[in-house]
Amino acid sequence: MTRVALLGLGTMGAGMAGCLQKAGFELTVWNRTRERTAPFERNGARVAASPAQAAENAEVIIGMLADDNVAQAVWLGDNGALHAAKAGAIVIECSTLSPDFVRQLASWATQRGCGFLDAPVTGSRTQAASGELRFLVGGEVATLDRARVVLKAMGKEIVHFGPVGSGAVMKLVNNFVCGVQASALAEALALIEKSGLDRDAALSILLDGAPASPLFKAVTPRMVSQDYSVYFALELMHKDLSYAVKEAAKHGLPLLTAGAARQLFEQALSKQLGRLDFSAVVEPLRSR
Amino acid sequence: MTRVALLGLGTMGAGMAGCLQKAGFELTVWNRTRERTAPFERNGARVAASPAQAAENAEVIIGMLADDNVAQAVWLGDNGALHAAKAGAIVIECSTLSPDFVRQLASWATQRGCGFLDAPVTGSRTQAASGELRFLVGGEVATLDRARVVLKAMGKEIVHFGPVGSGAVMKLVNNFVCGVQASALAEALALIEKSGLDRDAALSILLDGAPASPLFKAVTPRMVSQDYSVYFALELMHKDLSYAVKEAAKHGLPLLTAGAARQLFEQALSKQLGRLDFSAVVEPLRSR
Repeated sequence: MTRVALLGLGTMGAGMAGCLQKAGFELTVWNRTRERTAPFERNGARVAASPAQAAENAEVIIGMLADDNVAQAVWLGDNGALHAAKAGAIVIECSTLSPDFVRQLASWATQRGCGFLDAPVTGSRTQAASGELRFLVGGEVATLDRARVVLKAMGKEIVHFGPVGSGAVMKLVNNFVCGVQASALAEALALIEKSGLDRDAALSILLDGAPASPLFKAVTPRMVSQDYSVYFALELMHKDLSYAVKEAAKHGLPLLTAGAARQLFEQALSKQLGRLDFSAVVEPLRSR
Repeated sequence: MTRVALLGLGTMGAGMAGCLQKAGFELTVWNRTRERTAPFERNGARVAASPAQAAENAEVIIGMLADDNVAQAVWLGDNGALHAAKAGAIVIECSTLSPDFVRQLASWATQRGCGFLDAPVTGSRTQAASGELRFLVGGEVATLDRARVVLKAMGKEIVHFGPVGSGAVMKLVNNFVCGVQASALAEALALIEKSGLDRDAALSILLDGAPASPLFKAVTPRMVSQDYSVYFALELMHKDLSYAVKEAAKHGLPLLTAGAARQLFEQALSKQLGRLDFSAVVEPLRSR
């Protein structure tokens, strides 16, 4: 496992590419906008003109993409990576996608004779850059064992949940819970402000009590300072809430809290806040 | 401040009464069912036959009651405590009530020449028994200063948020956020189980990541073991979610996450789970 292709050099993909280079893999990168490939090219990466070209000699092909639609185009569209993947290569989807799409993609990969893992991550920009991501993996254990050396270069922990799609489900569970917590915090902050409570005293209760999650502690100062530099984009959280609701509905589970959070994120999207950090979900509540 | 009356010896009130006796206050207790007064009587408390009788000689009158309806009857009903309260006494409402009702009660107390504080608590049975509650206080600072010695006997921290009603609002903010977190966790656990993920691995992600609040860590093992011994009753969490939604609506704030959580708690109530711990909110999701 020495030749690795990485598709997508966004915030997370860029950090992962740096880690792969540092670990000595022969890296080929592809990104929709070519500018972002430059730093990796300077460090010796090959830059592919298309996903297919990136995939053609790779032993491991990694995707780190925005959503189902982008992943569909990059893997299966014109010059899609799967059309060029060699039999025996391993496809690793690290994007946060719907489990249904992941299972379809796995079936296409299998038909080409490729191994497949869904391996979305927890952690943000910082952890991606320092190789301290946590991979949430679905797929065959034998495939995971073959790919482990590559994942190890980018992550501090690799957790296996079951067959193909299990990593995708776990990621949606984690993210919908985070989206709900952020939404509840936004509503709490809005109610605190509208009620004229001493805000610092009120926040100290929430941040030193039963609901004080790491997410609460990280997001509260951003909501207070209104500094929405992106850790995790609001539009991506909206997507994850939507995928989670859809996945749960297949099991007859309505996922009411995620549905409510999705509504709050939709309000924020409609106010053009999608590219800001997801903590900006509080803003539409303030301006009521 | 030596003569204290305590109205309501439920899980929380009983712990508080013990602390007041330990601190040497002359305690009078009243409880709807008289059996619960026995241990305090043995330790020297006077047992009153009615809230009015409890209040008549007290310098501080504390309520720790279930909800607005109960508080209405105990303070303002036949033989209600406020009818007998002396001018100059301080009324401290520690129950979790709607801010509207609290403000009404304060206005009645003021008309009688009494001081008034709303001082609901965070902490549960354990903290009530050990005198380590946190009081969330609304009211005049001068009144709080006079009452502080009594609150100190029961709590490790006293936080002031603003005028009358502010403590009640803060308590609802804290509890609705907790109710939403418990609901999201319940939906997450149901989705994990229905999806056939490795449950222990999945929970380890939630309990070692961004959403891992003290509440998540406390509630998860109860949901997994299905041991619903009461820390905080499901029906009380439902009440708090309802009060929070109602209070926020006055500010034009819909509180969507609390509304979703309230629906989950209503499902659980309709299955007769109200007297169990609030972590039982997961059960109706499992049996779908």
